[in-house]
Amino acid sequence: MNYRIILHTLGWVLNLEALAFLLPLVCAAVYGEPYIPLFAVCIGVCAFFGILLTLRVPKKKTMYSKEGFITVALAWIVMSIMGALPFVLSGFIPSFVDALFETVSGFTTTGASILSDVEVLPKCLLFWRSFTHWIGGMGVLVFLVAILPLAGGDNLFLIKAESPGPSVSKLVPKVKTTATLLYRMYFALTLLEILLLYAGGLDMFSSLTISFGTAGTGGFSIKNSGLADYSPYVQNVVTIFMIIFGVDFSLYYMLILRKFKDVAKSDELRVYLGIILLAITFISFNCRGLFESAATAIRYTAFQVASIMTTTGFATADYDKWPELSKTMLVTLMFIGACAGSTAGGIKVSRIVILVKSIFKEVKLVSHPKSTHKVMMNGRVVEHDVIRAVNVYMAAYMLIFAVSLMLICIDGKDFTTNFTAVASTMNNVGPGLAGVGPTRNFGEFSTLSKLVLSADMLIGRLEIFPILVLISPYAWRK
Amino acid sequence: MNYRIILHTLGWVLNLEALAFLLPLVCAAVYGEPYIPLFAVCIGVCAFFGILLTLRVPKKKTMYSKEGFITVALAWIVMSIMGALPFVLSGFIPSFVDALFETVSGFTTTGASILSDVEVLPKCLLFWRSFTHWIGGMGVLVFLVAILPLAGGDNLFLIKAESPGPSVSKLVPKVKTTATLLYRMYFALTLLEILLLYAGGLDMFSSLTISFGTAGTGGFSIKNSGLADYSPYVQNVVTIFMIIFGVDFSLYYMLILRKFKDVAKSDELRVYLGIILLAITFISFNCRGLFESAATAIRYTAFQVASIMTTTGFATADYDKWPELSKTMLVTLMFIGACAGSTAGGIKVSRIVILVKSIFKEVKLVSHPKSTHKVMMNGRVVEHDVIRAVNVYMAAYMLIFAVSLMLICIDGKDFTTNFTAVASTMNNVGPGLAGVGPTRNFGEFSTLSKLVLSADMLIGRLEIFPILVLISPYAWRK
Repeated sequence: MNYRIILHTLGWVLNLEALAFLLPLVCAAVYGEPYIPLFAVCIGVCAFFGILLTLRVPKKKTMYSKEGFITVALAWIVMSIMGALPFVLSGFIPSFVDALFETVSGFTTTGASILSDVEVLPKCLLFWRSFTHWIGGMGVLVFLVAILPLAGGDNLFLIKAESPGPSVSKLVPKVKTTATLLYRMYFALTLLEILLLYAGGLDMFSSLTISFGTAGTGGFSIKNSGLADYSPYVQNVVTIFMIIFGVDFSLYYMLILRKFKDVAKSDELRVYLGIILLAITFISFNCRGLFESAATAIRYTAFQVASIMTTTGFATADYDKWPELSKTMLVTLMFIGACAGSTAGGIKVSRIVILVKSIFKEVKLVSHPKSTHKVMMNGRVVEHDVIRAVNVYMAAYMLIFAVSLMLICIDGKDFTTNFTAVASTMNNVGPGLAGVGPTRNFGEFSTLSKLVLSADMLIGRLEIFPILVLISPYAWRK
Repeated sequence: MNYRIILHTLGWVLNLEALAFLLPLVCAAVYGEPYIPLFAVCIGVCAFFGILLTLRVPKKKTMYSKEGFITVALAWIVMSIMGALPFVLSGFIPSFVDALFETVSGFTTTGASILSDVEVLPKCLLFWRSFTHWIGGMGVLVFLVAILPLAGGDNLFLIKAESPGPSVSKLVPKVKTTATLLYRMYFALTLLEILLLYAGGLDMFSSLTISFGTAGTGGFSIKNSGLADYSPYVQNVVTIFMIIFGVDFSLYYMLILRKFKDVAKSDELRVYLGIILLAITFISFNCRGLFESAATAIRYTAFQVASIMTTTGFATADYDKWPELSKTMLVTLMFIGACAGSTAGGIKVSRIVILVKSIFKEVKLVSHPKSTHKVMMNGRVVEHDVIRAVNVYMAAYMLIFAVSLMLICIDGKDFTTNFTAVASTMNNVGPGLAGVGPTRNFGEFSTLSKLVLSADMLIGRLEIFPILVLISPYAWRK
C-alpha cells in the first residue's frame, strides 16, 4: 500500500475544499451576513491539514486500483466531515451527525435533508449547501486529476473508482485531458442553465443554487416548498436541464466532434429517453384527475419523472399523495437512475440494459444451445469483464440494501418509509415516500439510522466498491 | 420443436392428476360427503384428455433443454387448470380465476389463499387443497421420471427445469434412480411427520393435511386460525419438520450412505441453519415483550422463522403486529428462502452464498489484481456457468418483481401490501404483511392482480426460466 500517495492526494482534496469555502465567504460578504469569520475558520482548518499533507511529496507516483479506490472513499469521507463544519459552527445544525448527513447528502448529490425549515438558514449557508451538489456532481477527483500535477503517474484508477457507470470509455487517451473536457462541458451546461433561469426573471442567488442542484442532480432547495412556488418557466427549464445532466457526458463530446452517428447508436440514451417518455405518459394519465388540465398534469409529471429518474429529487408537488401506481413507478425510476457517465445516481440505465440483454441471451441459449449469441450495446460486444462487474455490483447492491433496511427499521418506522429511505439514499435521489416523502425530512431518524443512511449515500455515489475496498481487510494486508 | 413428446408427457401429467383425484374421492367416501360424483367427473375429464394425449407415442424420444423447459411450464399450468375444477364445480370458489389462484398456490407450495373462511369447505376439498402442496413439493415431473419409462433419452432436462437451485446434481448417475430416491425420502419423511402428529393426539385428517403442507413447504391450513390453536407439541413438531424439508434432499441421501463428511462440508446447510438460529435469536429478543415468558417467545419465533425461511407460510401468531425490525427480518427471510434441492421457494441459500462469495472475490481482485481467487462452495470450485446462471436468475428475478409490483399496484393498495404480496408469491411463501398479513387473504385483489400473482407463483416455483422460455418467440422459432 502506497500510503504517501493516498495522504498526498487527500491533502489536495482538502486544499481544494478550502478554496471552495471561498465562495460562501464571498456570498456572506455580498449579502452582509455575519459569517465571514466562520468560513475563514473553515478555510483555515482545511488549508492547515491540506498543506500539512501535501508538503510531503510521495516518491512513487503510481497509483494502483487499490490505492485509487481507497483514496476516493477517504476523500469523500474527509470532504464531508470538513464540509459539515459551517453547519455545526454556525449553530444551525448543532448535532454533528445531522450536519454530516446533510453534507454527505450534498456531496453525494442526494439532496436528502434533516432540516424541517431551510428558510431560517442564512444565504451563505444555503449557498454552501447547494454548492456541495455542484462539487460532488462531477466528482472532486475528476477535477483533481485535471489540475493536480502528479506527472508521470497513471491516475485512471481514480476515474474508474469515481465515475458513475459500468464502463468508462476514455474520451481521449489521456486521462487528464478527459477530465478537463468533462469539467468544461459540466461548467458550460451549468452556466447555460444559470443564464436561462436568470433571463426568466429569477434572482441571481436562486439561479445559482437551483442550477447547482440541477447540474449535480442533487436536489437541495432554498425554499421549504421545494420548487413548487417557482414559475412554470423555471420548472420547465429545470425539467429539461435535469434530463440533460442525466445523459452520458461523453455523448456531448461526440456532439461537439459532430459524431452524430455515434450518439444515435447509443442504446443507453434511447432507453433513457424512452423510459422518461413512457413514465410521463403513464403517470400523467394516472394522475389526470388531480390537475385542472392535461397540460398542467404533463408539466408536473414531466418535472417529477425527470427529477426522480435523474435522481435529482427536486419536487414541485407532493407526489406522496398521487395514486399508488404513480408512486410505485417513481420508486422504480429511483432504482433505474439515469445514464452512466452523468452526474446521476441509481443503478444506471446501461446496467439495466446489460442485465435485460443477458436475460434474453440466456433464453436464446436454452432455446438453441449451439447458438453463440453475445450481449451487444451501442453496436459493440459487451466484454465479459463488464458483465461480471455489473453482476457483482447488483449482488453487493442488494445485500447492502437489505442490511441497511434491517438496521434502520430498528427505529420502528413503517415499511414504506424505511424501504424508500434506503432506496432514496442509496440511489442518491433525496425524497422517498410516506415518512420521507417530498414534504417530510430525515430529521426524525435515530443517530444510528442517520449514519447508516449517510453510508448508503456514499456507497451509492461511489458505486459500492471503493467503500468495500476501504473496509476490507484484504486491501490492507501486505 | 418436438411437439409430440411435449404433448405425450402432458398426457401423462393429466393421467397422474386423475389418479391423484382418487384420494379426495376416497376422503369424501370416508367422511360421507356428497362429493364423490364431483371428483369422479374431475377424474373423467383428466383421464379423457390424458389418455387422448398419451395414445400417440412420439417417434423421437429425445428431449432437449427447450422441450424440457416448455413441458415443465405447460405441465404446471395444465395441472393447475384441472386442479381448480373441484373448487369451481362444487361452488365453493365460484370464480374460475379465484379457484386457479388457489390451485396454483397449492401446487407451487405457496399457500396464499383467496378464502376468508376455509372452515366452510368440506373435508374432501380441504384434503385436495392440502394434497396439491404435497404433489407440488417434489414436482410432478420428477415423479413421472421416477415411475415411467417416459422416453428413451435422458430426462435430466425435465428434472433440471423443475428442481429448485442453481445447479442440479444427480444423486446417482441414472436420472430415473435419482428421481425414485428423492420421492422415497420425501415419502418417508412425510410419513414420519404424520405419525408424530398422530401420536401427539391429533386426528388422522389433521395429521395428514398438516404434514402435506409441511412436506411441500406449502402452508395451507384447514383452520381459519392457521396453526395457532394447535398444541405446543404439534407446533414444535411442525417447526422441526419445516426446517427438515428446507434442507437439500441430496444431503439426506448422503446420510443414508453414511457420508457424514460430505454433509458436514455443505456450506449451504451451515449458512441455512446459521440464519435460522440468528433470526430466532434476534426476533425473539425483539418480540420478548409480547409473550409471557422467554420460552414462549422462542417457541413462537422459532415457528415463524422456520415457516417463513422455508417459505411454508404457516402462522401461529399474527406477526404483522410484531415490531418493525422483526417484520423486516421476516420479509428478508422470504427472499432468502431455504436450500436448493429442497421443496422450498425463494432465492435459495446457495445462490445467496454464491453471490456473497463473488462480492468477496471482486474485492480481493481489486486489492490484489494478480490474485487468482475462485468462488468455492462445499469444498469445490463453483463453475463459471453456475455463477452466470445465478446472475441471470437474479436479474430476471428483479425485473419480474418490479413489473409485477407495478401491475398489482393499479388496484391502489398500499406499498407494503403490494411489495410483500409479490415477495410472498414469487418466493412461494403465502402470507406477507399489512393487507396480505397472516390474518388476511388475497381475495380482495382484482382479477388482473390475481392472475399476475398466480404467474409469479409459477415463475417462482419453476425458477423463472421455464416460463420465460415458454413465452419467448425464440423458443418457438425453427
